[in-house]
Parts: sequence; structure tokens; C-alpha cells
Amino acid sequence: MPRVLKGPVEVLGAGLLGTSIALALRKAGIEVWLSDINSEHVRTATSLGAGIPRPHHQRPQLVVVAVPPAHLAASIVEALDDGAYVTDVGSVKAGPLEEVADQVEDRALARYVGGHPMAGNERSGPLAASAALFEGRPWAITQHVHAEPIAVELVEELVDICGALPVRMTPVEHDHAVARTSHLPHVLSVLAAGQLTDAEPAHLVLSGQGVRDVTRVAAGDPELYGQILFANAPVVAEVLVEVRDQLDRAIEALTATNGEGNEVLEEILMRGNTGRGSLLGKHGSPAIESGSLFVVVPDGPGELARLLRDAGEIGVNIEDLHIEHDPARPVGLVELTIATAAIGRLGDALSERGWTTHR
Amino acid sequence: MPRVLKGPVEVLGAGLLGTSIALALRKAGIEVWLSDINSEHVRTATSLGAGIPRPHHQRPQLVVVAVPPAHLAASIVEALDDGAYVTDVGSVKAGPLEEVADQVEDRALARYVGGHPMAGNERSGPLAASAALFEGRPWAITQHVHAEPIAVELVEELVDICGALPVRMTPVEHDHAVARTSHLPHVLSVLAAGQLTDAEPAHLVLSGQGVRDVTRVAAGDPELYGQILFANAPVVAEVLVEVRDQLDRAIEALTATNGEGNEVLEEILMRGNTGRGSLLGKHGSPAIESGSLFVVVPDGPGELARLLRDAGEIGVNIEDLHIEHDPARPVGLVELTIATAAIGRLGDALSERGWTTHR
Repeated sequence: MPRVLKGPVEVLGAGLLGTSIALALRKAGIEVWLSDINSEHVRTATSLGAGIPRPHHQRPQLVVVAVPPAHLAASIVEALDDGAYVTDVGSVKAGPLEEVADQVEDRALARYVGGHPMAGNERSGPLAASAALFEGRPWAITQHVHAEPIAVELVEELVDICGALPVRMTPVEHDHAVARTSHLPHVLSVLAAGQLTDAEPAHLVLSGQGVRDVTRVAAGDPELYGQILFANAPVVAEVLVEVRDQLDRAIEALTATNGEGNEVLEEILMRGNTGRGSLLGKHGSPAIESGSLFVVVPDGPGELARLLRDAGEIGVNIEDLHIEHDPARPVGLVELTIATAAIGRLGDALSERGWTTHR
Repeated sequence: MPRVLKGPVEVLGAGLLGTSIALALRKAGIEVWLSDINSEHVRTATSLGAGIPRPHHQRPQLVVVAVPPAHLAASIVEALDDGAYVTDVGSVKAGPLEEVADQVEDRALARYVGGHPMAGNERSGPLAASAALFEGRPWAITQHVHAEPIAVELVEELVDICGALPVRMTPVEHDHAVARTSHLPHVLSVLAAGQLTDAEPAHLVLSGQGVRDVTRVAAGDPELYGQILFANAPVVAEVLVEVRDQLDRAIEALTATNGEGNEVLEEILMRGNTGRGSLLGKHGSPAIESGSLFVVVPDGPGELARLLRDAGEIGVNIEDLHIEHDPARPVGLVELTIATAAIGRLGDALSERGWTTHR
């Protein structure tokens, strides 16, 4: 089927996301024009083969707006005024759409369909970009009721070219979804990490894998995350108030003297169990029962590879893997997540090959 | 140097921790007696080679108390009354010590030195036990001022036999440390996970690695964690109140209409950055600069092994590894954490071997 998306595509904002999209488009043979308030970014992205600087007085078929949240709406409006079809990769959808709708006519608004790829991380800038960044990642497509069918089709093809998985929802649904799946976890990770600044450095040696997992995303850029949280402020605040109620209940339970706190606290902990369970199961299929096998691995090039080569030869598929580093010795403990039914077999076979394992 | 710890050692509570300690002691040739309120546990642990059921009318040299937090103090008192040296593996130290001190004479208390190995996880029961469970893990030794030197020595040798790393601190220091490095992250993980129960199932498809990391420990046993949190209730409540203050500030910042919220929120996010940074660096050494390389890996036995064999041949040491599963396709994205200086070299060499990578 011939594509509707023929290009040229203008990528506005040659950071990590914009340059990665540009590289994927170039790989598909589509002409890409790059623009950025920072001309250094355009030069870098161009040198990576992500496209050419936007020529003056020409109009692209599609503009992909990939600028920080604070500048999103203004950039979308400008691109619509130029007469192109427009999408964006902003992490919040309802507020910017409203701002845009206030500033352009419905006829122009019809050429805009929002998007949000679930990719990117603590790194930034065009040097970190890759055509494979979106490979297999969900990409929300948040069309509004006035969108032209062709505008939707262009974004769907863009998602397809990037190798991502389209997920359709309304802008408001999207913002409620990411408030719980992204913004709230980020804030709580930050609060957990923040309390470590008050801990005696000598006490941090007791830190295990748990606190490392909980605080990982707290490493994200404060300025960028500040903008993201503000862009979804009403929804995030609502969810944070719900969490504060639960936190109040937990504090009350822990300070209760009548012995009734136990039940409340356990209910809160159970609720966490349930919520966590709703995340499990990969490939969108029902969760298969899996468990852990721990293996002691010396810390040197090739050791982890040797373990996984052995596991591969034994014929067991690794669902997940975590390396827990010994804080003081050159040895790591590797947690392999595998189908429960295969744990015994893998453990025995690895032991036979000389590995120290435990379940 | 001849050991002071000659046995027999009674392990009271043949669950995951108790049975693992018993197995490590047996491996070191020390006689182990097992007891548990659940005779099934003793049978299982015995069949694993962890020791023999405790003989009547004989006294062990050392009793290791490995029972749930709610029964800890009573079990320690009983063991001290029998005249043995006593340690425990409870996750909270000051409260139980106080309870014990209230019930025994100072002369008896001198034979008790508390301990807390940083191991164990969501699993439980003797079947999950292993002599290698504590290999390389920190193990807090929390002696009180009245402890006999020989009581301390016995616990130090136990830690050594288990292959763990002794970390000395007072019981009160310990409880403040774990409140921040373990109990608080657990509660916040549970609160983040709990909010997912209110999310539309269709929205959860937008869940990325971030929320998975933040909520992982929320899978822990609610009853056990309830007991742990209650055992450290005053300290945990204090830290939770501090977090509630920060949460209030975040909510206020997000709902501020005077534009002053931005600065407050960014300060909170910065504080999270700083706290997270204090956790980094493995082997207790200063953090070396490391970064990520992403590789697309088909989901089948041996594929991950092939990747790591290639990485091993290229000669790059993998610091950490995360598998991010595609929610809808049989493909995984693997994030390799390696020294920043080696990222370019590994990426190029893997690409040459046919892998799809990005930074």
C-alpha cells in the first residue's frame, strides 16, 4: 500500500526525540528538514545523517514538533499557520491542544494530531539519538474530534516508520494515564531519593536493590521534569492529593495506640500488591508465572556472557535480569527471572557447570 | 586462627533466612539444630541438609533467632533464659533490644548481639534457601554497650561463614538507616503501585520501565512488611511526616497560580537528583562515569547470551543490564550500563556483528 507520508518532513527541535525520528525517516527514504533554536543541534543532527537544515520559503508536508513542554503550543500554532500538517511528541496532550485551539481556526486545528512516544530517558541531545529509539515502544496517538482523517493517517505512518506501537486514546485519557504510570511514580521516586540526602553516608552502605530500583528515575533532568509536571499540573495534583490521603492513613496507622493500625496498614500494602500485579505479564499477554534464580558472577568481561551462554545452551529463556553489585567486592549477584517451571532445571544444570546458584 | 564459633548452633525459625544460615554453617562443618513452630519447615530444612531437629535437654553454643518481627523479642528472651549466646536476623533492632532488656538481667543481656543481613526478597520458606544467599551482602551487627566481647565475636564469625560483609552500627543508628534506605522506599513504592489499581487497564499499556522499577518492591508480602514497618513505627512515621511535608510543597507548587511554584518544584526535583547520586558507585568505590547502550534483542533462548558473548569478546565489562520488554511483540530492548568511555566502541563493534543498537 502506497504511503500517504511522502515528505518532506520538518523536524522542529533536533534533540534526542526529534533527531531519532529524523533518522528513522531518513532510513525510510523520506526527505527531512531540521530546525532548532540551537543551531549547534542542527549541525550535529545533520552530520549524523538526520537530514538537512530547513530551506527557506518551502513548505513541508508534515511538521513534527519536538520542543520542550514550555514551548510546545506556540510551536504547533506557528507550524499550523504555515499550512502544514502537524504532530508533536510532547508528554502531555490536553493542555497544549486547548492552547492551540484557542489560537487557530478549526480548519487549521484539523491538520494537527498529537502524539507521545514512550521512549527517551535521562539522556538528551542529538548525539544520543538513534533510528531504533522507538523500536517496539508504545506511541500514543491522541486525535481530537475535529482532526482530518489524513492528519491521523500521517501520524500513524510516522509511528509505523519508527517501528513503534500505536496506542489510540483521547488527549484527556492520555494525561490521566501518564499521571499514574509516569508522573506520580516520578514524584514518589524523587521524594524517596530526596530523603537519602539526610541519611548519614555511612548508613547508605545498607542500601539494597530495592531502594536503587525505587529511586532510579529520580536521576532525570529536574528542569525537563518540572516542565512535564506543570504541563499536567491539575491531573498530577489530583493524584498527589489521593496519595497524600493514603500517606496520612499510613502515618496514622503507624502512630495508632489502639492496635487498629495493623489492619489499615496491611490494606494499604495489599493495594500496592494488586497495583503491581496489574503491570506484570509481557507482550500484552496474561502474566505467566515466573520466579527468580540467583547466580554469583565474578565481575569481569565475559563472565556474564558465559553465564548466559550456559543458560542458552540449557535452553531456558531469560525473562528479565538484574545485576546486584556487591558494595565492597568484585563479585556480582545476578537475578534471572524465568518461568517458574524451569527454575529447578536451570539451577541444577548451572550448578553442574560450576556456578553458585540459589533460588 | 581457630574459630570461637564451634557449635552446635540452634537456628530458631527455619524459613528462608534461617535455613540459608543453617546451610552455610553446615557447609563450614558446624553442627546445626533446627527448630520452628511449623514442624513442616523443620522437616523440609532437614531434608535439604540444613541440620537436625533440635535434641531435647541439650544446650547450643549460639542461637540464631530467625522468626517474624512480631515474635522476635519473646524468642530472644527464651533463648537467653536457656543460657546460650544469642543473635537474630530481625530487620529492626532498637525496639526488640529494649523489650529484651526489660525482661532479662544485664548478665543475660550481655550474651545477645543483634544482626541484620541485607538479603532475602519477596520469596519465603525453607525451599527458597541457599548457603549462598548472603554472599557479598552487607550484614549489620548492632552490638549494645553491655555485650560480652565473645558474643560479638561469635556473630562476626557467623557473618564471615555466611560470606557476608559486616557493617557495625548501634541499634538506633541501624533503625534510622533502614527507615530511609528500605522502609520509606517500600511505602512509597506501595503508594505508587496502589494508584495503578485506579487506572483504566487500557491505560496501563503506556507503562514504561520507570513505573516498573519504582513499583517492584511493592510485590513484597503485606503481612511481613506490615510487621517490619510496625517494629520501626516511630522512626518510619517521622520520615513519612517529612515526606508528607515535601508532598504538600509539591502539591502547593503545582496548584500555585502566582507562577512561583516552578522554583519550589525544581528544588524538590534537584534534591531527588542529589539523593539518587549518593547511591551510585559500586564496590564502595567512588562512582565511575557510566552510561547506557541500548540493543534490540529477539526474545528466545540464547539470544541474550549471544549478545553478551559478543560483548565479552569485544572486551567490555557490563556494569548493569535491564531488559525492557516490548508490551506487544516478541522482542526485547536491552539496556547495557557500561563505562562511558567504552560506549562508542561497544556500539560500533556490536553493529558490525549485526546488532541494532542506540545510545
